[in-house]
Amino acid sequence: MSSSNTAGQDDTFRGIHTFKHSLSKQYYVFSCFRAMSYLCLWFFFFFLGQLIDGWKCIAAAVAWEAGKPLVIEEVEVAPPKAMEVRLKILFTSLCHTDVYFWEAKGQTPLFPRIFGHEAGGIVESVGEGVTDLKPGDHVLPVFTGECKECQHCKSEESNMCDLLRINTDRGVMLSDGKSRFSINGQPIYHFVGTSTFSEYTVVHVGCVAKINPAAPLDKVCVLSCGISTGLGATLNVAKPKKGSTVAIFGLGAVGLAAAEGARIAGASRIIGVDLNAKRFDEAKKFGVTEFVNPKDHDKPVQEVIAEMTGGGVDRSVECTGSINAMISAFECVHDGWGIAVLVGVPNKDDAFKTHPMNILNERTLKGTFFGNYKPRSDLPSVVERYMNKELELEKFITHEVPFSEINKAFEFMLKEK
Amino acid sequence: MSSSNTAGQDDTFRGIHTFKHSLSKQYYVFSCFRAMSYLCLWFFFFFLGQLIDGWKCIAAAVAWEAGKPLVIEEVEVAPPKAMEVRLKILFTSLCHTDVYFWEAKGQTPLFPRIFGHEAGGIVESVGEGVTDLKPGDHVLPVFTGECKECQHCKSEESNMCDLLRINTDRGVMLSDGKSRFSINGQPIYHFVGTSTFSEYTVVHVGCVAKINPAAPLDKVCVLSCGISTGLGATLNVAKPKKGSTVAIFGLGAVGLAAAEGARIAGASRIIGVDLNAKRFDEAKKFGVTEFVNPKDHDKPVQEVIAEMTGGGVDRSVECTGSINAMISAFECVHDGWGIAVLVGVPNKDDAFKTHPMNILNERTLKGTFFGNYKPRSDLPSVVERYMNKELELEKFITHEVPFSEINKAFEFMLKEK
Repeated sequence: MSSSNTAGQDDTFRGIHTFKHSLSKQYYVFSCFRAMSYLCLWFFFFFLGQLIDGWKCIAAAVAWEAGKPLVIEEVEVAPPKAMEVRLKILFTSLCHTDVYFWEAKGQTPLFPRIFGHEAGGIVESVGEGVTDLKPGDHVLPVFTGECKECQHCKSEESNMCDLLRINTDRGVMLSDGKSRFSINGQPIYHFVGTSTFSEYTVVHVGCVAKINPAAPLDKVCVLSCGISTGLGATLNVAKPKKGSTVAIFGLGAVGLAAAEGARIAGASRIIGVDLNAKRFDEAKKFGVTEFVNPKDHDKPVQEVIAEMTGGGVDRSVECTGSINAMISAFECVHDGWGIAVLVGVPNKDDAFKTHPMNILNERTLKGTFFGNYKPRSDLPSVVERYMNKELELEKFITHEVPFSEINKAFEFMLKEK
Repeated sequence: MSSSNTAGQDDTFRGIHTFKHSLSKQYYVFSCFRAMSYLCLWFFFFFLGQLIDGWKCIAAAVAWEAGKPLVIEEVEVAPPKAMEVRLKILFTSLCHTDVYFWEAKGQTPLFPRIFGHEAGGIVESVGEGVTDLKPGDHVLPVFTGECKECQHCKSEESNMCDLLRINTDRGVMLSDGKSRFSINGQPIYHFVGTSTFSEYTVVHVGCVAKINPAAPLDKVCVLSCGISTGLGATLNVAKPKKGSTVAIFGLGAVGLAAAEGARIAGASRIIGVDLNAKRFDEAKKFGVTEFVNPKDHDKPVQEVIAEMTGGGVDRSVECTGSINAMISAFECVHDGWGIAVLVGVPNKDDAFKTHPMNILNERTLKGTFFGNYKPRSDLPSVVERYMNKELELEKFITHEVPFSEINKAFEFMLKEK
C-alpha cells in the first residue's frame, strides 16, 4: 500500500506520473515564518489531476505512521454524501498543528491519515442538500465550521459551531462515521475535516468558505488558519483604535498576522515580544515598531512594557501558547481600558494565575479561536481585504516547493520550530 | 474633645441641641440589604444646621479610635480652597467600607476621622476656580473622582481618574495636604475625600456630581457608591442583551443592584447565587428568578449553572469579593460569548486561577470599579433612570433612623454582615 515513491525524493515527480492523474506545476510556498512561527508554516502545491466521475483515484500524501515520512499514494476518494462537497485542492500549506499530530506526541495516534488543513481549491462536486456551493466555486476549506443552525452560529459573538467545531480526534466524516479516502479498500483517516494534502478531498459544506474567484488561491490559501487567527485576534477581538499601542507576544506566523492587524487598525506603536532575537528584523515588515526580548531584562516583561508605555499598552495579543506569556500579556495592558487577547494554545496542565486586582482595575481578558471569524460568513471579507490591498499576504510567503517534496516541508518545520 | 454625648444613646438628641447649630428632623434610612449586603448598608440623616460665613462650627460624627462608638462633636469646617466645594449634607448612608476602615483591621489606623461616603447634599460655597458648580446645586459627593484632564478621564472606557481615584490612606485634602475639619485646632481626618457623616464637608470639585434638583436626595443618595457599582457592572460592563441569562454572585446590596441592572436590561433569567438562603426571598424584588446555594450541591457551582442553562449563562457578575466566587463566576459563563464581570474586592493574597482553555474558548473576563461610571459625567443620567421610574431605589431602603443613632447603624451592620 505504501509502494509509491516517498515524497521528497528526487524521483517523486516521475513517481507521481505513474498515477492516473498526473501532477504537474507542483510547487510549495513557504511562509517567511518558518523561522519565526510557533504554530504555522506553509507550503503550497498545485495539482492538475484529471477528473473522473464517482470515486476518484488521486494523489495524496499519506502518513502511515507517526513521525515517518509521508508517502505520495494513489488514493480513492468517494463522492460527497449529503451536505458534503468534494474539492480539488490547488494549493495547500503546512501548519505546525499538522506536524504536531503527525508526530503523535501527547495524543492518541490515528493512522494512516491524510493531514493538511490550510488550502485553496475549487468545488468539483456537491452532495445532496448542498445549495450554497456549486462546481467551479473557488473556496477555502477550514478546519472548523459554521453550520448556521446551532446556538453558536446564531450568536453574533461566537464562531465555535457546535456541530463542526474542530475535532482533532475524529478521522471520519460526521454523517456516517466513515472515511471518504481509501487505498485498496483500506480506509485512510481524515484530519480536522479537511485533509488537504490530497489532490481531492471531501469536506462538510459547513467547513467551506466560498470566496471571490478572482482571488489568487496560491496567496489566499494561507487564510484558512494561522493568518486569519492572528489577524482576527487583533481586528475582531482586541479591536485597537487608531493610534493605540499594541503588544504582540510571539513573532511567529500568528503573531505577525496579529501585528498586521494592528498595522491595519492604525496602531501607533506595535511592540513585539519574543525570546528569539532573530525574529525582530523580519517583524518590521509587519508593522512591529519596537522589540522586547524578555531575556534582556531582569524584571518581568509586563513591567518593562508598562515602563515603556506609561502604565501599559492599550491592547495585547498573546500568540505563543506559553502560560507565562499569557500572564504577562494580561498584566502588561493598561488599567482602565486595556484588553488582552489570548490566542496560543496552552498545555493541558497549565494554570492562568493573576492577582484579582489586576482584573478589578478594569482590565479585560479575552480568548479567541480562529480570530473569531465565522468561516463561511466572514472569510470572504478577509479575502477582500487582500484584494483591496489592505492586507498584505505576499510577505508571509517565502518558499514555493513541489508537492513531491512535502517531507522537506516537514523537515523545515522541525528544524525551525 | 470627645466630651459630647455619644451618638446612639437616648440622650443624643438633647446633646446635639447643645451645639450652636441644632439638628432636627434627623433620620436614617437603612437599606433592606443590611441582612444581605456583603459590602454596603445605608443610613441617612438629615441636618438643618444654620449657615455661618467662613469657618463653620457644625455637627459631625467623629471616630476617635478604631472600633469605638462615634461621637457627635462640634467640628469646625474650613471654607473650600481652590477647586473645592463645601457641601451641606442632607442624607447619608453607611457602607461596609466605612465600617471596615473604622474597625481598622488590616490597614494603618488614621484617627480621629470623619467617615461616610454615600450621601446627597447641596453646594453651600465654592472655592476659587470652580465653575461647574454654584451654591444651591443639588449634588452627590463620590469617593472617587473625575478630573476631566487625565488619560483615564479622557478615555471613553475608564473611570479610574489618575488624580482623584479612591485613596483610603489619605486623610487630608489634595491641594495642601491639610484637613478642613478641626476641633479646637486639632485636625480631624477626612475619609475617601467625602466624610459625609458631617453636617458640612469639603470635597474636591472633581468628586461632586451635579444632579437634577427635583430628585429626592433621601433616595438618590444611595447612588454615591454601592447601587451604582452593581448597576453599572451589569449595564455598562456585562451589557446583557434582552432575553439573556445572567448569574449574580452575592445577593448583598451590590449584587442586588447588579440584578436590578439585569432586570432593566431585560434578562430572561437572573440566577442568584449566595451561601445565605435567607437572601433569596428578598432578591425576587430585584428580578432574581432562580437561586443556587452552593452549599446545596456536591459539585462546583459553575457546573450546576452550566447544567441549568445548557452550557452556561450569557453574563455573570461577581459581587462578593470571594476568590472562589470569582473563579466560579468566570467559569459559569457560556463559551463563545460569555462575559464575567468582577466587582467584589478580593483579599490581598488571593490569586485568580483558571485553566487557560476556559479563556481561549471565547470567554471574557472583565473587572469594574464603581460600575465604570464616571462620577461627574455619568451619575446624573443614573439619577434620571430613577426619575423615569426605570430604576427602583425605594426597594433598597428599609430603615430611616436619626443621625444621633449613627452607632446603631454600625451595630446593625456588624450584626448582619
